[in-house]
Amino acid sequence: MQSDAPSVRAALEYARANAARFTTRLAELVRFASVSGDASRRDDVRLCAEWLVRTLRTIGLPHARLIETSGAPLVFASLRRSAPNGRATILVYGHYDVQPPGPSAEWHSPPFTPTIRDGAVVGRGASDDKGQLLAHVNAIESWIHTAGELPVNVVCLFEGEEEIGSPALRRFLRTHGPRLGVQAAIISDTRMRAVDRPAITYALRGKMRIELVVLRRGREVHAGEFAGAVFDPARALASIVASLHEPGGRIAVDGFHDSIRVASAAERTYMKRVGPSDAEILGSGGLEPAPETCERSLYERTTLDPAISVTELQAGDAGEHGKSAIPARTSAMLDLRLVAGQDPRRIAQLVRTHARRFAPPGAHVALRIRSASPALVLDPRNAALRAGARAAEATFGRPVVFLRSGGTIPVVDTLASLGIPTVLLGFALADDGMHAPNERFGVRRFAQATECAIRFLAEAGRTLSPRPLQ
Amino acid sequence: MQSDAPSVRAALEYARANAARFTTRLAELVRFASVSGDASRRDDVRLCAEWLVRTLRTIGLPHARLIETSGAPLVFASLRRSAPNGRATILVYGHYDVQPPGPSAEWHSPPFTPTIRDGAVVGRGASDDKGQLLAHVNAIESWIHTAGELPVNVVCLFEGEEEIGSPALRRFLRTHGPRLGVQAAIISDTRMRAVDRPAITYALRGKMRIELVVLRRGREVHAGEFAGAVFDPARALASIVASLHEPGGRIAVDGFHDSIRVASAAERTYMKRVGPSDAEILGSGGLEPAPETCERSLYERTTLDPAISVTELQAGDAGEHGKSAIPARTSAMLDLRLVAGQDPRRIAQLVRTHARRFAPPGAHVALRIRSASPALVLDPRNAALRAGARAAEATFGRPVVFLRSGGTIPVVDTLASLGIPTVLLGFALADDGMHAPNERFGVRRFAQATECAIRFLAEAGRTLSPRPLQ
Repeated sequence: MQSDAPSVRAALEYARANAARFTTRLAELVRFASVSGDASRRDDVRLCAEWLVRTLRTIGLPHARLIETSGAPLVFASLRRSAPNGRATILVYGHYDVQPPGPSAEWHSPPFTPTIRDGAVVGRGASDDKGQLLAHVNAIESWIHTAGELPVNVVCLFEGEEEIGSPALRRFLRTHGPRLGVQAAIISDTRMRAVDRPAITYALRGKMRIELVVLRRGREVHAGEFAGAVFDPARALASIVASLHEPGGRIAVDGFHDSIRVASAAERTYMKRVGPSDAEILGSGGLEPAPETCERSLYERTTLDPAISVTELQAGDAGEHGKSAIPARTSAMLDLRLVAGQDPRRIAQLVRTHARRFAPPGAHVALRIRSASPALVLDPRNAALRAGARAAEATFGRPVVFLRSGGTIPVVDTLASLGIPTVLLGFALADDGMHAPNERFGVRRFAQATECAIRFLAEAGRTLSPRPLQ
Repeated sequence: MQSDAPSVRAALEYARANAARFTTRLAELVRFASVSGDASRRDDVRLCAEWLVRTLRTIGLPHARLIETSGAPLVFASLRRSAPNGRATILVYGHYDVQPPGPSAEWHSPPFTPTIRDGAVVGRGASDDKGQLLAHVNAIESWIHTAGELPVNVVCLFEGEEEIGSPALRRFLRTHGPRLGVQAAIISDTRMRAVDRPAITYALRGKMRIELVVLRRGREVHAGEFAGAVFDPARALASIVASLHEPGGRIAVDGFHDSIRVASAAERTYMKRVGPSDAEILGSGGLEPAPETCERSLYERTTLDPAISVTELQAGDAGEHGKSAIPARTSAMLDLRLVAGQDPRRIAQLVRTHARRFAPPGAHVALRIRSASPALVLDPRNAALRAGARAAEATFGRPVVFLRSGGTIPVVDTLASLGIPTVLLGFALADDGMHAPNERFGVRRFAQATECAIRFLAEAGRTLSPRPLQ
């Protein structure tokens, strides 16, 4: 661990001196009910974006602005010296939208009335992702107010649709990404290994949502008159869904496992050493492990293995009072998590073939791919990831842990397809209540995240080489 | 076929002379949007019941009244001579509630604005059951206005909850049924075999609704983090549902078929001779027959065979925008149609045992019996059914056809348990659009139904012996 350069120390001291004001800033941001999944909150989403633009302008990014999309606006700001300036350019990503708060009875304080409790800012979005986003805003402010400039060119891009799949941002990046001249991206929207144990996520599972629809000709019919005479689509749907797994739990789709790139023995040894235990993964939520007999740890199963889950089933009209009709249409939403080597298009084809093969005679089966994003493995030796690792180690006093995640961040795949590696350096903890009631972000952790972000900009400026604007 | 007695002829002539007024009466009744399954129509249901009370009082039943229930009111009226009068007592049943109209775009005229088109009254409830109910009201009026009395004691009981399972009426009958001193009931809410071919339904399948719930401990969890680590309830539900049938379509629940009372060869020969063809059952709705290879006709399969259909599946929250959560609770509604010999309680136990046996390890399975009603077979030689058959033959000029129905009318079972046989003598046709858009009831058929009801009262008075009031 090397000691900080004088310019870094000045920025860190500024951040420490302004820590209370930064916490107030976080509370202000949490106050916006920017729920992207709730159409009635569209105004709150926009007000939140406008607040971010004002804040970025205040801290020294005078050209911060909204970029309109078909959905929530993007918040965009860049600060470069006059080109060519010999500095690399870093994309700082964050999302200002939040999950719906869920049942208000489970919140100890209103979700959009932030309060400080047990040393944490409590409110929807505190950790996911408003606190982590602001750590980078604070870091930029700290640099500009002490050095008068940033150690690296920065493009800030904050979206308001992360919780609904980032459609606008991904379109924006595919169109305008190449012209941004970015060498690397940093996203703070993942977890630490534990308190004071920093982590960089280097692998994500892919994700594909397949809607499986089974239809019968004609309309819904009265079960009394027709039960036994006509095809029952929900029964057929159940047969197909049940056929996707072997009794032992292994996915039964022919060819599904064929192309999987298996993790090396060295990586698995490393995973065993640093990864979470089964108990840590199941947490305190009263969860039970899947019953499949398997000697692999839950950490391995949720990151190295693909999975097919059924997230929705729909048949009939549960709202109708005692109605007894055999529906004409039923559907299931299959959530596939893919691993390295699995091409979503090929997997979709295998699932389609399987569904057709296991459909009972008479079933009209349709599969619709609703979203698809492949798995991604980043090289921990990549210069940007190493810069993140050094910044985290200097901040927390412990080496960073490289972790695989079972989740999917589609924008990381979009960036990778542009040749941009992403440093997934996050500061959330398992018990921060992301997507749950009483979400929180520790005040001390918020300060650490800000310091880590300050150091990351320095490390990136020092070690990354620039790429010319296209 | 014997010729009508003079008193019957007088009543028939009155009915013919008043046919136009009776049609206007049906149009008036159809005007009420008495949709029992729609809470916002509660006032329409009540106004409809009040209209019926006023009508019954007008035609000579001065003590007609509402009986309040926890739901829609019952319409009650009785006309007896001073007891003991040596006459049998007939329960005349009908229901004044209707199905929801469904998509308005599919109606050629508004569902509650009755119109005469192609010789039929068109509107929701025209055939199910307002037209058939009024046939009996017309018949009672015709008798009272000509003979000054009825040939038999009559208790009218019209309910407003048939389309939602008759809960109030069944409670009322269980409590007050024995004191009504009724020998037989007549229900006109079934179909004829064809135009001018009258039919009496002598067998009904039983019905049981079982809600199958599969639970996992804990709350819903993020599929990215947990897919592969926790139990997937929807997958387990699909396995259980899929296990209920053999690949060939036969129900796979152990013991399910053991106690079935098989129809005699003579009955099956009769069924073949008079029953509907497969094409008639599938109708013009673009239905396809169930794919199971089976040499039995659809008429046999829908009336002599039990069936399990899946009328509802529920898992996850289809409304949420792209949410990827593994739910903690999923459910299916199983609609069982039972046949003679199958005790609903024993069948429920067999299904429960089966579900537990086929549940994957880790599944928490709960079964809830939501309703249960056994199959019922009435003896066509019963005096009341014979009275109905004679009335129908005299009216339509052809012998009545005795039919089995695949459906269930729970109140018939309640009456049977009180020792009261029910004459299921209905006047609807397959293309009357019951439960569908553009429901209709032919004007000529309405007059025939009225005449048949007039004759049934005479036949019942002539041939049924009275039972003392308890």
